[in-house]
Amino acid sequence: MKAGVRIVDRAAATCILTLCFGCLHVIALKQQLLSRRGGSSHSTEVPISYETLYFDQKIDHFGFLEDGTFKQRYLVADKHWQQPGGPILFYTGNEGDITWFCNNTGFMWEIAEELGAMLVFAEHRYYGESLPFGQDSYSDNKHLNYLTSEQALADFAVLIQNLKSTLPGAQRSPAIAVGGSYGGMLAAWFRMKYPNIVVGALAASAPIWQFPGMVPCGDFYNIVTQDFASSGYNCDANIRKSWKAINNVSSAESGLQWLSEEFSLCVPLKNKNDAFGFKNWLQETWVNLAMVDYPYEANFLQPLPRWPIQVVCKHLAFDATVSDYQLLHGVSQAAKVYYNYTGSSSCLNTSQTATGSLGLLGWFYQACTEMVMPMCTDGIQDMFEPEDWNFQAFSDECHAMFGVRPRADWAGTVYGAKDIASHSNIIFSNGGLDPWSSGGVTSNITDSLVSIMIPDGAHHLDLRYSNVHDTPSVRAARALEVMYFREWIKQAKGTPQTASTP
Amino acid sequence: MKAGVRIVDRAAATCILTLCFGCLHVIALKQQLLSRRGGSSHSTEVPISYETLYFDQKIDHFGFLEDGTFKQRYLVADKHWQQPGGPILFYTGNEGDITWFCNNTGFMWEIAEELGAMLVFAEHRYYGESLPFGQDSYSDNKHLNYLTSEQALADFAVLIQNLKSTLPGAQRSPAIAVGGSYGGMLAAWFRMKYPNIVVGALAASAPIWQFPGMVPCGDFYNIVTQDFASSGYNCDANIRKSWKAINNVSSAESGLQWLSEEFSLCVPLKNKNDAFGFKNWLQETWVNLAMVDYPYEANFLQPLPRWPIQVVCKHLAFDATVSDYQLLHGVSQAAKVYYNYTGSSSCLNTSQTATGSLGLLGWFYQACTEMVMPMCTDGIQDMFEPEDWNFQAFSDECHAMFGVRPRADWAGTVYGAKDIASHSNIIFSNGGLDPWSSGGVTSNITDSLVSIMIPDGAHHLDLRYSNVHDTPSVRAARALEVMYFREWIKQAKGTPQTASTP
Repeated sequence: MKAGVRIVDRAAATCILTLCFGCLHVIALKQQLLSRRGGSSHSTEVPISYETLYFDQKIDHFGFLEDGTFKQRYLVADKHWQQPGGPILFYTGNEGDITWFCNNTGFMWEIAEELGAMLVFAEHRYYGESLPFGQDSYSDNKHLNYLTSEQALADFAVLIQNLKSTLPGAQRSPAIAVGGSYGGMLAAWFRMKYPNIVVGALAASAPIWQFPGMVPCGDFYNIVTQDFASSGYNCDANIRKSWKAINNVSSAESGLQWLSEEFSLCVPLKNKNDAFGFKNWLQETWVNLAMVDYPYEANFLQPLPRWPIQVVCKHLAFDATVSDYQLLHGVSQAAKVYYNYTGSSSCLNTSQTATGSLGLLGWFYQACTEMVMPMCTDGIQDMFEPEDWNFQAFSDECHAMFGVRPRADWAGTVYGAKDIASHSNIIFSNGGLDPWSSGGVTSNITDSLVSIMIPDGAHHLDLRYSNVHDTPSVRAARALEVMYFREWIKQAKGTPQTASTP
Repeated sequence: MKAGVRIVDRAAATCILTLCFGCLHVIALKQQLLSRRGGSSHSTEVPISYETLYFDQKIDHFGFLEDGTFKQRYLVADKHWQQPGGPILFYTGNEGDITWFCNNTGFMWEIAEELGAMLVFAEHRYYGESLPFGQDSYSDNKHLNYLTSEQALADFAVLIQNLKSTLPGAQRSPAIAVGGSYGGMLAAWFRMKYPNIVVGALAASAPIWQFPGMVPCGDFYNIVTQDFASSGYNCDANIRKSWKAINNVSSAESGLQWLSEEFSLCVPLKNKNDAFGFKNWLQETWVNLAMVDYPYEANFLQPLPRWPIQVVCKHLAFDATVSDYQLLHGVSQAAKVYYNYTGSSSCLNTSQTATGSLGLLGWFYQACTEMVMPMCTDGIQDMFEPEDWNFQAFSDECHAMFGVRPRADWAGTVYGAKDIASHSNIIFSNGGLDPWSSGGVTSNITDSLVSIMIPDGAHHLDLRYSNVHDTPSVRAARALEVMYFREWIKQAKGTPQTASTP
């Protein structure tokens, strides 16, 4: 378990399909993408400046045998905070280094002043610097046992309670949870489970229904496919065709060599297994592109041009008569848009989506326990090779990897599945281009459980810095989000809190 | 830790003060009070008949290392259930044998037919037969680690989900949580945390605010005192006076002997420590009487006459000039109303409130972890010897006893403390005579978080069988409760459930 995770068989491939969500962020983290903003064309210059603090958090909130604590990292920016009572915008950190999320959530930085808000970014346990057992945190399943969303939510709750009771002027500050992706799921769940702690939540691109039995397993890849279909002539058709072309070409040793050279692979493909991994890597590349198909030059996962899928698809606009080699040359050019837009990569590393890292392992573990997200492809509705969702194979893989088995129904039971109408004050924002919208809440549930759709938006675009190239839909979304924030803050201020007895 | 719990010093006495809630039920359980109803004068004859079933429940819902299961006992009565879709009244079992709660919750049996409801009584883990590690469940703090309210609520959620998915006709059955005392707290918290599982909750005599910082620590004993003050001439004053009388008399060996004989003690008092324990035992006796001051002959904790405190107070109606010996003779007669109403006890056992038993230990452990309920007395507002709330002493005692330390703020953080207004569909019923109403919700919070007061009611009187001697207030309470149940059921039926995708 300490070694890197290498995917070598079909069962494991099933696993990979479910894990892209986490891989994405972690890979991005690992790549140390230092630029904090989308290109140079953002319209405002809101400086990021925060204090880094650490809170002694209980390792186990749900048992009393383990009474130890760890240092949870959190970032605080109170420059614009109007105390006493100014709101707290609280980022519910997801599966990675919190500074990266902090730097990629320009929306919070841009609205802090107008709301007179304090910003807090709380790191999720087991990621970044917030390691419950230091370097031993990932050493075995015993140490990993406290890596759950419930523990993370409890961390957030206890931290906010502590801030309110120790920061002068914060006692009556309404807190609002904000998060994107898994962090958005946490934001929504935080409001559901701890409405005493946060008055509302913005759950951006949060696939809270991407769990067994809630949405069709094929929706995710259908959206990826649609993104490519609408971005260039025959783009999806040629990607669908490319898998067979790879199979054909890679069946001969000379073909493997050709592929390796054509794609400038750092490690040449040697055999069939490598070719299989190569296809997985490409598949994930297309998924990642669908997630970051932003309307401006950006550097979220990789430095990319504006509307990167359109750029990618220019290399894939072949007619039906294209040869395997022509097609794969186009695919390699397309892949290099993603991996080498700046021209600084000397070679492409196909093992990166499966490389072990603390963060990556963490999300693998979460996917292998609570975060069971079925995905499947059929090659017809989508442009990928057919692959069923196989829970048993996935479970066996998890057991082999971590000595734990996923509980398919738990997330639905604990977080309400489709029966969440009794909750309130949650915004679910989703981008129409974002494959994760497949598991998102994309229509209003009640007056205060609202959906905001950004039809031409990718993965949590609304949380990013505003940009001159932003489309009207994302501008409108952000304005609506701030309007709801104001309403919640007003509600909270209007509610006389029951006095407590010291 | 395996041995019985004996309280021998002041610090431990503090502990006892916080634990009566649980002791009460457990002692009652231990005494095997077999009669299931309040005397012979109940007005209806609704037979109790159920099936006993066992469900394989995960030992740990919040971690994946411990993947074992245990058999959770639950009782099902579906005689009146109108399937498909008839409601499920679900008793959220508290700290004892579920059959005892089942037999003492006549209200559910009486309304099953009119609501077409299935009754389910679920046993709380670590009590009765539902022992996660069998006979080892209490062997050390490692085995006790899964005894928390959160785990119990998760048990209930998973069980209901299972019933709905496996019982033909139950899929769309709205479930309503019902519980009394700690079980009432669980019912309320269950609705708060799992509104997807239960459409509403009746939390009878549930002191959800009896936690640090929420209510004054003296309120509980003030109510006990008021019950005695209003039940007979000088009754509270003479009990207040009795402690000094015991101190005076027990200062001599002959006095100890006299007390032992006068109170027909099974084990004679030998020293000052025994006298201290004797006073604790008396104090708990008065508390218990306050809890079961029912308007009819009943056998809940002990066989007792109707309005037992009035009967007790007849023995305590002395003027100020009463001598210590006269007064203590009266106290002994009063105590025997509680301990020997039927005349069948040959002697009185003062160690019973501190005797170790599985159930008693379980609640002690819960009080030593999550269920931190501060109590104090001042001898002025109340009729007891002054005793401050001393958290540190309590924590030290817990550490010595179980190797764990209580977390004073956790219950408030996780269950919302006074900030619960965003929840819905919970009835908080409280009896004005019940000392536990000190920590209860005794006024409406919102239109759907309602308080029902039963001014002349004791501890969860409304959950008991109806009785010809029932006062109008408890009759009205039950009628109102059923009205809310009907409303919640109607709401649930009116809400089209979002279809899930298999």
